[in-house]
Amino acid sequence: MKPLSEKRYLVLDMPTEEDARSDQRRLLDALAAEFGPVEIPLAQLQRLYPLCRTAEGKLTVTLIWNGERWRLADLERGDTTAWHYGLAVDLGSTSVTMELVDLNSGTVVAKESMYNRQTALGSDVLTRIFYAKDNPSHLEELRQAAVDTLNELMGHLTEASGVDVSRCAAMVLAGNTVMTHFLLGLDGFPLFLSPYAPVAAEPGFLTGAELGLELAGLVYLYPSRANYMGGDIISGVVATDIARSPEIRLFFDIGTNGELVAGCQDFLLAGAGAAGPALEGGVIRTGMCAGPGAVERVDIRGEQVTLQVIGEEKARGLCGSGIVDLLAELFLEGIMDFRGKLLPEASQRIVEAEGELAYRYADGEETADGKPLLFYQSDIEQFLATKAAAYTMVEYMLKAIGMTFDDVEKFYVAGAFGTYIRTSSAVTIGLYPDLPEEKVACVGNSSLEGARTLLLDRDRLGEINEILEKMDYIQYGAIPDFVDSMSAARAVPHLDTSRYPSVMGWKREREARQAAERDAAQG
Amino acid sequence: MKPLSEKRYLVLDMPTEEDARSDQRRLLDALAAEFGPVEIPLAQLQRLYPLCRTAEGKLTVTLIWNGERWRLADLERGDTTAWHYGLAVDLGSTSVTMELVDLNSGTVVAKESMYNRQTALGSDVLTRIFYAKDNPSHLEELRQAAVDTLNELMGHLTEASGVDVSRCAAMVLAGNTVMTHFLLGLDGFPLFLSPYAPVAAEPGFLTGAELGLELAGLVYLYPSRANYMGGDIISGVVATDIARSPEIRLFFDIGTNGELVAGCQDFLLAGAGAAGPALEGGVIRTGMCAGPGAVERVDIRGEQVTLQVIGEEKARGLCGSGIVDLLAELFLEGIMDFRGKLLPEASQRIVEAEGELAYRYADGEETADGKPLLFYQSDIEQFLATKAAAYTMVEYMLKAIGMTFDDVEKFYVAGAFGTYIRTSSAVTIGLYPDLPEEKVACVGNSSLEGARTLLLDRDRLGEINEILEKMDYIQYGAIPDFVDSMSAARAVPHLDTSRYPSVMGWKREREARQAAERDAAQG
Repeated sequence: MKPLSEKRYLVLDMPTEEDARSDQRRLLDALAAEFGPVEIPLAQLQRLYPLCRTAEGKLTVTLIWNGERWRLADLERGDTTAWHYGLAVDLGSTSVTMELVDLNSGTVVAKESMYNRQTALGSDVLTRIFYAKDNPSHLEELRQAAVDTLNELMGHLTEASGVDVSRCAAMVLAGNTVMTHFLLGLDGFPLFLSPYAPVAAEPGFLTGAELGLELAGLVYLYPSRANYMGGDIISGVVATDIARSPEIRLFFDIGTNGELVAGCQDFLLAGAGAAGPALEGGVIRTGMCAGPGAVERVDIRGEQVTLQVIGEEKARGLCGSGIVDLLAELFLEGIMDFRGKLLPEASQRIVEAEGELAYRYADGEETADGKPLLFYQSDIEQFLATKAAAYTMVEYMLKAIGMTFDDVEKFYVAGAFGTYIRTSSAVTIGLYPDLPEEKVACVGNSSLEGARTLLLDRDRLGEINEILEKMDYIQYGAIPDFVDSMSAARAVPHLDTSRYPSVMGWKREREARQAAERDAAQG
Repeated sequence: MKPLSEKRYLVLDMPTEEDARSDQRRLLDALAAEFGPVEIPLAQLQRLYPLCRTAEGKLTVTLIWNGERWRLADLERGDTTAWHYGLAVDLGSTSVTMELVDLNSGTVVAKESMYNRQTALGSDVLTRIFYAKDNPSHLEELRQAAVDTLNELMGHLTEASGVDVSRCAAMVLAGNTVMTHFLLGLDGFPLFLSPYAPVAAEPGFLTGAELGLELAGLVYLYPSRANYMGGDIISGVVATDIARSPEIRLFFDIGTNGELVAGCQDFLLAGAGAAGPALEGGVIRTGMCAGPGAVERVDIRGEQVTLQVIGEEKARGLCGSGIVDLLAELFLEGIMDFRGKLLPEASQRIVEAEGELAYRYADGEETADGKPLLFYQSDIEQFLATKAAAYTMVEYMLKAIGMTFDDVEKFYVAGAFGTYIRTSSAVTIGLYPDLPEEKVACVGNSSLEGARTLLLDRDRLGEINEILEKMDYIQYGAIPDFVDSMSAARAVPHLDTSRYPSVMGWKREREARQAAERDAAQG
């Protein structure tokens, strides 16, 4: 392990008449062979003499690598090398997660999440951008909210672990470009407006104090490649080893925006598009975020609907994974056709409501407010438009590199959405390509994982610079037949069913089961 | 000129869809060819976007060299390259002097001095060391007093020049090792106690903010070579070009301590000793610091004494240059012999007072309090012991490098004492060697001058490192026959009169004049 910070126990010789080097020089000389010229901040210099002399030269130094040289982060009496921790952070626009990592063992000691305090100033990123636009005091509010969130999480970690995390020498933080701008007190407006040039994409290492954090050490912020290709994605690319892989890997972070990276050790191609809030349950009329009362699993057998509800409460609505399941089951059971049309003759649960068809996926006795929950024809269309965009992004990226899905060694799905979704359902509706199950990996919070990866291996810093240099950027908006392709991908699983042999097989199995059940009922 | 800070007017292209680089990258790329990778502090990054876009990319950057790379110190709208200033400081234990330097022309725009506010906490360095010893809050008081002094001087310079000096990007400060320690908030006690190892001898570049200064830029502190060989002396060596000279040069800073450097481009030897406060008028009974009422020039012709008093006031006492003049005149006029004994028969001004002989150098009507001023036999002895120490230090240093006074190309005398002293008088009493007048140069505040030299020429930074590496240190205390040599040097000008042919000539001239006058009187 080569963590971003290192601790060493030193026994410095005391000055003599023959060797009256300064304490500063004595320390620098002791570290030079292993660490080269070490930077000593004034605050540490001020602690050197009393500590050095009273401890009879027996000291533990904590050093942090800042990408160019080592910097002295702490001085302690005696041998304290057993205490060596660092922090990894995913700074999301909705929630922020922080891990305390033992840098001696590489294990995660504690993990805490909370809502980003910026949500009080604007529920989504765009609202916050406009809140801060040309308004330095609003921008400062947003910056402070991010800082407060991080400080609060550090407090929670300290409580949970008994480790004073403010003494950590290294924090690695990954966030999207807008979140990084706000944490740095930079206006996010240019990220919204063509030509989308960031103010700063490579903030690098900053002191905790500079950022306003209650942290003695340095903070590394993952760089951004472009406005929609932020540090969270670069971090995910590091977590999934794409840039070191001999085989082609695909990385897809599906959320409100879809960010996609394809590549291997030889090249990287990235693209991003508005996947749409439909995937997170934001547009669907009874959609909701994953949380208590959200339906996360749906199984349909004929008229029988089996729901799995988060928190084992009564159902309140559908979260993203519930929608994908519901759509897949409607299709497999023949209640919805390949165009996404509900077939009223196929189920008694199909009703007319508000001037359109809808599928009643929960009865009154199963729901929190006692009213049945409906999934509307227009909801289906919303979602299929979204999944078509996501699929076509992947398709075009592969086309751009002259590859097909067969060439893909691994398909990484990042984000909370990918973590809870049933892979077979995502394949069924044509959101994911029809890949063997073992090729699909849900990597969850890969932004956090990449932060931890770097925290534990500073050599990855060089890789990050390579990723930025190597990464080409695909402009989906500029592709002429993108919309045509998207309309073929609106079908379930796809207008070209030969791309989905597995789905066709599953559908045949269901039809056979249905036929057998009908036979049994008639028999 | 290659000053420590540079300003450049830039016209940055605005982002386009083809070139959506960040503002940070755009600025870095514009500077890379001339300045390499420039460090941009967060505070400047935060100003970049609004300024960059509203100024349509027309910006002036101020960069400061930190010894390793350039750092962005300021961003301004439009072309402000005409405004380019820096600060040079001599941080003395008694008084502090600061200059405002125009870095476009190299001229000094304004200069201010004031007492070091630390004097309120301890009149001399030793008192302050003991005041701060093991007492962090006293140390903090001393640090704050130094900082207050510097901030106040900046305020004075701003008033005097109309230039807002807090916007300067570069300050160079030279001070002795103790003064530097206190400014950094470092305990000075180890400098007092064997083995005299400093806490930090190479503080290098620090931010104004870190030091507590009202200064946007960086501060370079001249390094120390040893406890008694501080940044003020290294600065003086730079000012006098000793380390770049093909010929041997001697540098002598005479004050409470005498610091001596001899060398050329090939080697440097340094030594220091307690020259004694006698040189600054501190021990002599009617001695005083140079200031209103101090006698700074003395001429004696027979019974006629002509005084020059600072501020053209009535005499209150003798300052250092007055003492040297008085002693030289007493010797040349034959009123004091080569052993420093007053000869009562030689002048009616010799009186007995307080049990010893004394010379009445001012009558009642010439003095502030109406009482005559006396220079005592014991004062003479005090002073001769001091001058003997100083001379012998120089002698031994030359001996150590196998040279004689004839090999010396230039003898630099630094310090306020050297500035006001009459060179011929200093030679007469044997304080200076008997060198031709053109070989002796009084360089005044060479500490300040070296600070300005570096401010205007950053290439001298490399020279400073060479000086530290090259400089050997002579331990006068360890020389066995030092005291013997000193007793020969107690004579006026020296027991070995062959070393002072000029003085012997001047003495003969005086004796001839006296004889002629006697003849005329008798005639």
